[in-house]
Amino acid sequence: MDLPKTSQAMVFHEVGKPLIWTSFPLHPPEENEAIVELEYASICGSDLHSVFGKRKVPVPGVLGHEMIGEIVALPSTNPPHDMNGEPLALGDRVSWAIAASCDHCFYCEDNIPQKCESLFKYGHERTDSQYPLSGGFARHCYLAPGSKVVKLPKDIPAQLLSPANCATATTAAAFRLAGQTKGKSILITGAGGLGITAVAYARYLGASQVFITDKHESRLKLATSMGAHHTFIVPKDGEQLKTEILKQTHDRGIDIILEMSGDKSAIEQGIDLLRIGGIMVWVGSVFPQEAVQLNAEQVVRKIITLKGLHNYSGEDLQEAIQFLISTRDNWDLTQLIEKEFTLERINEAFEYARLNRCLRIGINISKKEGN
Amino acid sequence: MDLPKTSQAMVFHEVGKPLIWTSFPLHPPEENEAIVELEYASICGSDLHSVFGKRKVPVPGVLGHEMIGEIVALPSTNPPHDMNGEPLALGDRVSWAIAASCDHCFYCEDNIPQKCESLFKYGHERTDSQYPLSGGFARHCYLAPGSKVVKLPKDIPAQLLSPANCATATTAAAFRLAGQTKGKSILITGAGGLGITAVAYARYLGASQVFITDKHESRLKLATSMGAHHTFIVPKDGEQLKTEILKQTHDRGIDIILEMSGDKSAIEQGIDLLRIGGIMVWVGSVFPQEAVQLNAEQVVRKIITLKGLHNYSGEDLQEAIQFLISTRDNWDLTQLIEKEFTLERINEAFEYARLNRCLRIGINISKKEGN
Repeated sequence: MDLPKTSQAMVFHEVGKPLIWTSFPLHPPEENEAIVELEYASICGSDLHSVFGKRKVPVPGVLGHEMIGEIVALPSTNPPHDMNGEPLALGDRVSWAIAASCDHCFYCEDNIPQKCESLFKYGHERTDSQYPLSGGFARHCYLAPGSKVVKLPKDIPAQLLSPANCATATTAAAFRLAGQTKGKSILITGAGGLGITAVAYARYLGASQVFITDKHESRLKLATSMGAHHTFIVPKDGEQLKTEILKQTHDRGIDIILEMSGDKSAIEQGIDLLRIGGIMVWVGSVFPQEAVQLNAEQVVRKIITLKGLHNYSGEDLQEAIQFLISTRDNWDLTQLIEKEFTLERINEAFEYARLNRCLRIGINISKKEGN
Repeated sequence: MDLPKTSQAMVFHEVGKPLIWTSFPLHPPEENEAIVELEYASICGSDLHSVFGKRKVPVPGVLGHEMIGEIVALPSTNPPHDMNGEPLALGDRVSWAIAASCDHCFYCEDNIPQKCESLFKYGHERTDSQYPLSGGFARHCYLAPGSKVVKLPKDIPAQLLSPANCATATTAAAFRLAGQTKGKSILITGAGGLGITAVAYARYLGASQVFITDKHESRLKLATSMGAHHTFIVPKDGEQLKTEILKQTHDRGIDIILEMSGDKSAIEQGIDLLRIGGIMVWVGSVFPQEAVQLNAEQVVRKIITLKGLHNYSGEDLQEAIQFLISTRDNWDLTQLIEKEFTLERINEAFEYARLNRCLRIGINISKKEGN
């Protein structure tokens, strides 16, 4: 099928205003570029924060960075390659990392490609930039040079794969920073998209005990269905949490905490819950908030490690997709997507998200209104 | 020479009171024990804190944990071994880690022997414990089973080697936690015994730029003589510190910070001075203090790692001694010891330390009053 002359996107202009259906010309891709026809996108928490004004993004722009699709156009020479070094081909179903990176700058060589000096970030570009079509809430997306692309099997539901390049890959990165997980006790604070994914990931990696906290009972129920051993409503069950952790860890405290709530009290309590030599990865604090108050003497005497994490590497995305595929019969992570809309109805999706506390809303792009 | 029937120590009983000259019987060592005739000890900052009531220690007790000496008694069978697996022999000059550990408990297997479940800590035991003579401010010291012993060459000054098993080994552990140092920029906050040692250690490991801060000009001068490239009086030069770090690091910020002052503002400013992907090791905060206020979003977005460190392992002591021996002609770390007293006059030494801001005071134990 020939590439159409134009594509369409729902463009975000201003906080509190509906996204606007907009056409864009589709130029043939140049060397190391590709065009993807989007199949599915999911609305990440940070898309909600952008649309509802909790954080600033360049406008006007096509938001959405959790997405998958099919390669529909390639340059005549030098097509891009996937993470395994294989050239992309028409018809490939693909996921790709939120950040495209150069592989040779200071940060890329330090294994932090998500902070590349010539960073390109999907779902974060203005419509007057080089790649206006680089967000998920559109019919097509350009793959920029340096994109970290992973080919996907065709028989796995899009609802499982769409969050791979944000929630799942960030979770994989968090476990990479946490180190050896097998046989360890793990506390996950916050049962949002990342926290729920992290429960299943912890079981996949052989954690011996998985604890999780959240403010909402319904999320903790979902966490239990993903393999959590112990769930706690916070702040109500804070004391019980500590008692149970000590009981299950020979009074030592927890080995690993993945902080995915962004709640400062979760960080503060975490120092107390960690065992001597424990490690906590901070993932949730991606918005301005009050200063966290830490007892430095406790961190020193307990020889605690604290690691901040923002985004992930291409290798993390590969790991994440491997996890989603190999565990699809163990834990049904498609449940993260609680409601689905078409692209045309994305404004209803955002309104639904505002009124309901959804983990993820899916945007089924290949399903067109009127089809 | 036969082992005398008794030994003597200066015993600490109460804050504000002089240490008391006391005799103790010397029993022949049992299996895996040894007796060391002490040659030299140095007064660590934490000994000062104990004597002046800034921290609590078990009393009455023989303080002092920075020390070296000669093996003068061994059991008839099963003598202890050094870190290289060689049996100790009479006449060996030795240093040993502050903590004796079991090698097989949870923490030993997690490579935190300094938190061993059956920990024995030199200079921290009561005189009615199994090993009353286990502190440095005495004529003899028992080596308990599980001690991490390193043999010392006989031609190196005691003033260089005495701090090995506290200031130097903790510094070695801090660099182990910081990871690769070669070619990196390093900021050391606090130019006490550890900070000064860390400057020379950073140069030894090939750091490209060494910055150091302190409140006192004289200490920074000493740091310069140990190889520091840039020195700053804090808090006065705080802004200049940031400007110079950015200038020397292509505007990225510093690679590694070793926090050795225990000053909470050093930790707080550190987050701002670190580059993306930077690492800070907290060593100085070993006393109760106000909570540190951290911007968690900055830690997350900059992918910063923070590691607490308390004490060190036997391998760190080996590294520390290797460093002291191999760099003795490069940097004169005997300068850390600014004043020397005999054991009998240790109360004068504490009084001198109270009145003057010394890095270390040496206790020359082998030099006896009236000799």
